[in-house]
Amino acid sequence: MLIVQKYGGTSVGDVDRIKNVANRIKATVDAGNRVAVVVSARGGVTNELVARAKAINPKPADREMDMLLAVGEQETIALTAMALHAVDQPAVSRTGRQAGFRTDGAHTRARIVEITGGDIGQRLESGEVVIVAGFQGITDDGQVTTLGRGGSDLSAVALACALKADLCQIFTDVDGVYTADPRIVPNAKKIDEISYEEMLELAAMGSKVMQARAVEFSQKYNVVFEVRSSFNDNPGTIVKAEVPSMEDVVVRGVALDQNQAKITVSDLPDKPGAAAKIFVAIGQANVLVDMIVQNIGRGGAANLTFTVNKDDVPRAMEAVQKVLPEIGGGVVNHTGDIAKLSVVGVGMRSHAGVAATLFNILAENSVNIQMISTSEIKISVAIDLEDAKKAAQAVHDGFELGV
Amino acid sequence: MLIVQKYGGTSVGDVDRIKNVANRIKATVDAGNRVAVVVSARGGVTNELVARAKAINPKPADREMDMLLAVGEQETIALTAMALHAVDQPAVSRTGRQAGFRTDGAHTRARIVEITGGDIGQRLESGEVVIVAGFQGITDDGQVTTLGRGGSDLSAVALACALKADLCQIFTDVDGVYTADPRIVPNAKKIDEISYEEMLELAAMGSKVMQARAVEFSQKYNVVFEVRSSFNDNPGTIVKAEVPSMEDVVVRGVALDQNQAKITVSDLPDKPGAAAKIFVAIGQANVLVDMIVQNIGRGGAANLTFTVNKDDVPRAMEAVQKVLPEIGGGVVNHTGDIAKLSVVGVGMRSHAGVAATLFNILAENSVNIQMISTSEIKISVAIDLEDAKKAAQAVHDGFELGV
Repeated sequence: MLIVQKYGGTSVGDVDRIKNVANRIKATVDAGNRVAVVVSARGGVTNELVARAKAINPKPADREMDMLLAVGEQETIALTAMALHAVDQPAVSRTGRQAGFRTDGAHTRARIVEITGGDIGQRLESGEVVIVAGFQGITDDGQVTTLGRGGSDLSAVALACALKADLCQIFTDVDGVYTADPRIVPNAKKIDEISYEEMLELAAMGSKVMQARAVEFSQKYNVVFEVRSSFNDNPGTIVKAEVPSMEDVVVRGVALDQNQAKITVSDLPDKPGAAAKIFVAIGQANVLVDMIVQNIGRGGAANLTFTVNKDDVPRAMEAVQKVLPEIGGGVVNHTGDIAKLSVVGVGMRSHAGVAATLFNILAENSVNIQMISTSEIKISVAIDLEDAKKAAQAVHDGFELGV
Repeated sequence: MLIVQKYGGTSVGDVDRIKNVANRIKATVDAGNRVAVVVSARGGVTNELVARAKAINPKPADREMDMLLAVGEQETIALTAMALHAVDQPAVSRTGRQAGFRTDGAHTRARIVEITGGDIGQRLESGEVVIVAGFQGITDDGQVTTLGRGGSDLSAVALACALKADLCQIFTDVDGVYTADPRIVPNAKKIDEISYEEMLELAAMGSKVMQARAVEFSQKYNVVFEVRSSFNDNPGTIVKAEVPSMEDVVVRGVALDQNQAKITVSDLPDKPGAAAKIFVAIGQANVLVDMIVQNIGRGGAANLTFTVNKDDVPRAMEAVQKVLPEIGGGVVNHTGDIAKLSVVGVGMRSHAGVAATLFNILAENSVNIQMISTSEIKISVAIDLEDAKKAAQAVHDGFELGV
């Protein structure tokens, strides 16, 4: 088989871990496979480089930031190749440029245009392992670019696609994707197989196993990949296109996002376009709004409540406050004492009653639902932050995910 | 003027020093010059990378070593460009590849084949400062190479040559080239002008201001450069082709090398070819022999004494011991209690009596001369290590270099 393996920053964090990765790669080769490897910068290196840049220039130019950050992965590819040589495994490193990761010119968030692969195919044929720098690429006029944070995942699935690999393995510091965060729900189980869509919904909720762009790319080009741990030999979670049998499972997992905040605009004049003006202003402030509830309050005035990421509260508040005079009144408040709990599963498409079951479980556990939002394969509720962990456990048990 | 400036690892050692370098560059631009800058890795970074590599693989492949080490300069060019932007000076960084430093494929010690300069000329014309990564280059098939330790000096003079720069300034942590090491001879004076040959003889002696290959390159292509400090505004030392007036100064400087060892082979059968066999063996062990004395000892047997760098003693001893049985006898010993003192000056070519003056000074100060070697512009003597500092001061005074 032709296998693309990706090792993240924690997996190549120090000299011993790089040796460990080399042994794992060699074992894969010895089992009769051709192996191309994508590596990230050593854990912490990227943050160190960013800190140094900001100390020199609070607003470093994107082009120079890319020049700087590309350094992290270039170090790791060389060290990993050396570690493979030390165990008598022929190997060679390739920068993003050498591996032909052609991107557009959008520095710090470049998009992959094409992966030529350079001579990787021949190298693999000749028995060498090829170690490719993740996260980085090159424009047609030779500028170094990076793909944005977590871009190494994207590099890996894109390389797997370009090489028509049989398998893409994303090695990380967790055993795979779980039915819930095991730190919150101790009996959470590792999921054996999950669809791209489910993975995206769970990842977006804070089960930050993998970058969403990488999953979207995989979905677009139908790249099957496995998320697994670099610290043990347990099988991981296979992420792939939905197959009919996946719908047998109604709820694949429970996600909990405790980094939400609720903003309430009360006493809003109930006239057409008021809500629209508020959301336009928030959108222009680059804040993503998640759940929204509008209701009529005292004396015909409307109340508008919505959730945003906690980090975005200052920008959102400022945007709303600026637009209120224009609308003709209203009072804005916010609270961070809120959490979002979601159940995700492609089975919801064909199974009715999931929402009812969810609401029942929460009611039985005295958890008050403040807001609700749904998509085809997801139901989310906003609840009190202090109820969050209890609710996650109850919902996980109620849908029998730990069985 | 078009000026190439080079800043070494100490000068760009941390965030504050990089800011300092940026201010210096900007001042040069504001004075009406176009400026291209060559930088080294931050002080200590290259050693850290080497240590990490050796911890992973005691004998890392040269190609991967180059991939690894090139990282150091790539970090510095980005940070330096950011520092210039922070003081509103347009600037752009260039890797060795982007600056068109074409080299041969001799990894870790590549030789420059050609410098195309890429778009550096246009960038300078448009008012930008261009920051180029020293030490690194690229082969015709896209492999990253490095020029060997201290290669950034070579990058700077080669770039100055390619750009037909009016001036090349090598910024370092000393004020220039001195008539002697000021730590040993307190009244040593900075030399205003020195010829390439004198610089080479002094550099080779341990006045390690600059790498010999860079000086040789400058000599070959007649690149005038200035060695000066990045920590003050004192004028430095101009290094250039010999002009007639330079011969007025008989002795330009005194160099002291305290890292010498003496190896003595005694009771050597006095037959043809014995010495040759010894030096062939030492040469094959890659040890450079400096001064040599042979004399006839007791009973017609010969004694052979020579000096080598202290670090090379084990290899030299092993090589000699292996070859002695073949020669038919001899006993080998070594001592590190030796120093080499040299006086250097192109004026020696036209002034007789320099050797006599040197020997007189040493005799007056009761310094015993153990060995002597001379070249056209240099006289070296091997003396007791414990006499070294006293002798250097006496010779410096005797030739009136501190006046």
